[in-house]
Amino acid sequence: MSGVESAKPLAILCGGGSLALEAARLARESGREVFLIGIVGWASAEIEAFPHIWVRLGEVGKLFAALRERSIADMAIIGSVRRPELSDLWLDWGVIKRAREIARLFRGGDDGLLNGVARLLEREGLRIVSPRDFAPQLFAPVGGIAGRAPNGAEEADIAFGGALLGALSPFDVGQGAVVANARVLAVEAAEGTDAMLARVAQMRASGRLRLKGRAGVFVKAAKRGQDMRLDLPTVGPATIAAATSAELSGLAIAAGEVLIAERAAFASAAEAAGLFVVGWAP
Amino acid sequence: MSGVESAKPLAILCGGGSLALEAARLARESGREVFLIGIVGWASAEIEAFPHIWVRLGEVGKLFAALRERSIADMAIIGSVRRPELSDLWLDWGVIKRAREIARLFRGGDDGLLNGVARLLEREGLRIVSPRDFAPQLFAPVGGIAGRAPNGAEEADIAFGGALLGALSPFDVGQGAVVANARVLAVEAAEGTDAMLARVAQMRASGRLRLKGRAGVFVKAAKRGQDMRLDLPTVGPATIAAATSAELSGLAIAAGEVLIAERAAFASAAEAAGLFVVGWAP
Repeated sequence: MSGVESAKPLAILCGGGSLALEAARLARESGREVFLIGIVGWASAEIEAFPHIWVRLGEVGKLFAALRERSIADMAIIGSVRRPELSDLWLDWGVIKRAREIARLFRGGDDGLLNGVARLLEREGLRIVSPRDFAPQLFAPVGGIAGRAPNGAEEADIAFGGALLGALSPFDVGQGAVVANARVLAVEAAEGTDAMLARVAQMRASGRLRLKGRAGVFVKAAKRGQDMRLDLPTVGPATIAAATSAELSGLAIAAGEVLIAERAAFASAAEAAGLFVVGWAP
Repeated sequence: MSGVESAKPLAILCGGGSLALEAARLARESGREVFLIGIVGWASAEIEAFPHIWVRLGEVGKLFAALRERSIADMAIIGSVRRPELSDLWLDWGVIKRAREIARLFRGGDDGLLNGVARLLEREGLRIVSPRDFAPQLFAPVGGIAGRAPNGAEEADIAFGGALLGALSPFDVGQGAVVANARVLAVEAAEGTDAMLARVAQMRASGRLRLKGRAGVFVKAAKRGQDMRLDLPTVGPATIAAATSAELSGLAIAAGEVLIAERAAFASAAEAAGLFVVGWAP
C-alpha cells in the first residue's frame, strides 16, 4: 500500500464481535486515521475509544453525512449483523430517497444483501475495502497456528474437506464441513459453524456417530469467488469451544481467507483443548 | 425379467421400516417365492406372515445355512440398521471363520460397511439384488406424486438442488438438501433427512431464517454411482411430517432412485399438509 493511500482516513462500519475493533487498532498502528461507525445493538461500546458515531440499521442518511463531513471515501464492513426485518429498520430520509434499491435488497440470499449494500454505498462514491488491505494480520497464515501438526490421515481429511468446499462453492454455500477418515459428518449451510459443530457433538452423544476418542477435522474456507470485502468466514475462541464439544482432532482454516478473532485467546484455547489448528493454502 | 429368473426364490434381509414387507408383498404378487430374514431388534414382527427366520446381527453362519437349505441364491437387503458396535454382534462360527474380513468392515464410512457386507455375501455365492429388479413400484416415478405442480421458482430450486447434490456426490455425501429461492438452507450429511428438516424448522422458529410462509423445497436423490442394491434413499409419512414442521413448499425426489414407504399414506399426508411432491429425472 502506498504512503498516499494509507494516509487517507478509513471508516469501519462495525457489527458484532471483536474483529472490527481489532482491525481498527491494526489500521491505527499502521498510521492510518480511523473513524468507526457502530451499528446500534451490534457493535461493542469499546468503539468509543476511537473517533466514532452510532447509527441505527437504516440510518443511511446519517452515515453518508458523517462520512462526507470528514471527507472519508474508504470504508470497511466488519462484524456480524443478522439480516434485519424491514420493520427493524430506522427509516431516515437517506433510506426513503433510496427506497426502491433498499427494498430490492430484501429479496435473495444474505450474499445478495451484503453485495447490494456494498453496491449502494459505492454508487454514493464510497470505496468498500477489504480488511486484507489494511489488517492482513487478522487472516489465517499458512501452516501451524496452534498445537501439534496433523497426521497423515488428518492431512488427507483436510484435503478432502477442502475439495468438498470447492465443489459446493458454485452453489453459494460451503464455508465449512467436518470430515473424519474420509467421511463427511456435516456440511454447513444457513445454520452457521457453531450450530454445525453442535450437531456433530450431538450425533456423537446420541450414538448416531460412533467414533473413538478425538476424531474429525473442521475445515473452513471462503466460498470460491467470494467478495473478500464482505462477510468473511471467521473463527475465534467460541469455535474452539464448539470443536471441543464435538471431540474433534483439529481445525484447518483457509489461509488468507478466514479471519481469526482474538488470535491469542483462540490459540491458547486450542492448545488447552488439545486441538491442532493449521492454515491450508486454498 | 425372464420367467426363469422370477421363478427363483428370493430372500429379503429385513431391517427397520415398512419397505422390506412392502417389497416382499410385491415380489410375492408377481409370483415369486420369498423368504424373509428378520434382523432381531430391527425388522417388524409382520415378517412372520411369510416364510421367515430371525437372525441376530452377526449370525452369519445361521443366515448362510438357512439359505443353503432352501437353495436360495438371490437376496435383497432392505430397511434401516444402524452401524453396530462390534460388541453388539452375536458372534457365531460363521462370523468367527470370517473374522478378518468382518473386522475390516468396521473401518470406513457406512457405505464401506454395506458394500463390504455385500461383497462378503457375494463371495459366499449369494447374488445381492436391487428392489428395482423385483419391486420397481416402490420407487418415485417422474412427475406429480401428490399436490399441485411446483411453480417456476420452485422448479428452479429443484434444478439447483439437484445440481448441488450432483456436485456433492464424489464426496460420498449429498442425498438431501433444502433450497429456497436459490439459497441453500441446509445440506444433509451424517445427521440424516429428519434431523436436517428439523434444523430448518428450528432456524425458522429462532428467526435465523426469515422466510415468509411456505418456502423451500426438499430435494432428495441417490448419490451418483450409488450401488442401487444397498442403503437407498427413502421417504415416507415421517418425511411429510418433518417437511411440514419446516414449513416447506414441497418435496422433489429423484425418480427411480428414491424409495417411497407407505405410498398411499405418504401421498395423503402430503395432500393434507398442502405440500407438493414431484419426482424429477436425475
